[in-house]
Amino acid sequence: MRNIDEHTITDAVLQSLAATPDARLKELMGALVRHLHDFVRETRLTEAEWQAGIEFLTATGQKCSDTRQEFILLSDTLGVSMLTIALNHARPAGATQATVFGPFHTADAPRVGQGADIARGAPGQPLFVQATVQGPDGEPVAGADVDVWQADEDGLYDVQRPELGDMRRARAVLRTDARGALRFRSILPTAYPIPVDGPVGTMLAATGRHPWRPAHLHFMIRADGYEPLTTHIFRDGDPYLDSDVVFGVRSSLVGDYVEHGPGTAPDGSRVDAPFFTLDQRFVLARPD
Amino acid sequence: MRNIDEHTITDAVLQSLAATPDARLKELMGALVRHLHDFVRETRLTEAEWQAGIEFLTATGQKCSDTRQEFILLSDTLGVSMLTIALNHARPAGATQATVFGPFHTADAPRVGQGADIARGAPGQPLFVQATVQGPDGEPVAGADVDVWQADEDGLYDVQRPELGDMRRARAVLRTDARGALRFRSILPTAYPIPVDGPVGTMLAATGRHPWRPAHLHFMIRADGYEPLTTHIFRDGDPYLDSDVVFGVRSSLVGDYVEHGPGTAPDGSRVDAPFFTLDQRFVLARPD
Repeated sequence: MRNIDEHTITDAVLQSLAATPDARLKELMGALVRHLHDFVRETRLTEAEWQAGIEFLTATGQKCSDTRQEFILLSDTLGVSMLTIALNHARPAGATQATVFGPFHTADAPRVGQGADIARGAPGQPLFVQATVQGPDGEPVAGADVDVWQADEDGLYDVQRPELGDMRRARAVLRTDARGALRFRSILPTAYPIPVDGPVGTMLAATGRHPWRPAHLHFMIRADGYEPLTTHIFRDGDPYLDSDVVFGVRSSLVGDYVEHGPGTAPDGSRVDAPFFTLDQRFVLARPD
Repeated sequence: MRNIDEHTITDAVLQSLAATPDARLKELMGALVRHLHDFVRETRLTEAEWQAGIEFLTATGQKCSDTRQEFILLSDTLGVSMLTIALNHARPAGATQATVFGPFHTADAPRVGQGADIARGAPGQPLFVQATVQGPDGEPVAGADVDVWQADEDGLYDVQRPELGDMRRARAVLRTDARGALRFRSILPTAYPIPVDGPVGTMLAATGRHPWRPAHLHFMIRADGYEPLTTHIFRDGDPYLDSDVVFGVRSSLVGDYVEHGPGTAPDGSRVDAPFFTLDQRFVLARPD
């Protein structure tokens, strides 16, 4: 411990962690130190680069507020969030895969009945969704709580529009019927950029990356006896499917949004403009 | 890029960085992503642990202010600062080694002449320092600017005492004479804890680590024709030499502080209490 150099320091830090009471914390801190030191040694980080790193992390922390989480955005854009989700939500074959939760879910979405128009005035082309929730053996999952939320045609969630105050739109909580089915009307989701007015935006620009996410609907499904599922349904043909800035796309989550001319919608109503339909099946996994 | 899972995601993120215009930034970001993902995969990080990490980093950023840099403290206590210094200041045999700069240097230390009492009232046992600054061939380095700064006997630097306002004490800038020599009076440095009222203090407590640094004098030496040197001189016998919380101790930087009974000091003055002397040689390196 008195002969610190670039070769001995990692062991010295690991030794300082030897008395960590919590075994898992000890494992995590040790791995963090090893990988962090390997990064510094491999790149032969200069002092100016170290300083730039300190300033970047500080600015990222200081950008966080009650309504902004820049460190989650950093984790998302470096693939760390999606990696963590993929590790923790390995699904048996056939079960619907998980993807990122994102920062736009709220706990106060209105609970609505089957067939409701959850857009509640949010701008966008009409979308009629019919979904079923099944278990691994194809059994219908009745009484599942399903959170749905999405951006509007301007690429904004309700919480990103200060003029709306506490009004919630283009989000809702529904419950599957006895056949595990779900019906609602909403609007077609569109692609949108993540916020770029902070350090993460600076990082994206410096690395030549765009800030866009492909269009998607968010679903969070909870039912007794099954693993919870947090996922998206993306739109086939979206130009950002192959370059999602948060690495959330999985082929199995690309849904079939079908465009229709003006006419009678699936709910029997008359729609005087083009509209879209989405038929989607979700398969829940059982706990191990 | 549409088949993201825990095995494919690292390549997907690396591919997203392919167009980074700056080659070094591309190298750094790529290495960061690889090591960060390896950490997550190796530990099979849970979502709750990921969340705790996000909250820790956010709190660390938010603890930073004009007078507090918690991310540097985190880097220091994980050995990242000292590793960076060791990598960037490899010294030829015989040259004095570098160590951490620390957060307590100021740009407004008083410039004083040979023999000055730089303590200026800071509490502590008297210390008389005689130092020489040499080049690699033993030649004296005349006219070198030498910054000295230190904690007092309460373990506090002047900037940690709000009651002092802008008053500077136990710090100064001196210049070596024609023989490369330096003489000044100060106080004996003592061990002190780093600030523990933030996330880094929480981390130290959770890992069973103490927050102490062994006693030391800081020196920063600059002279034309030589590599700048930022280092400490530690006190032999200090109980924290083997467990410095920021991993800054090197055997070669442990100095010989000698205790004397009351009597005549090296500067010819009469001292009525025990006092200490330190004779220290610094050897500068030449630029490559």
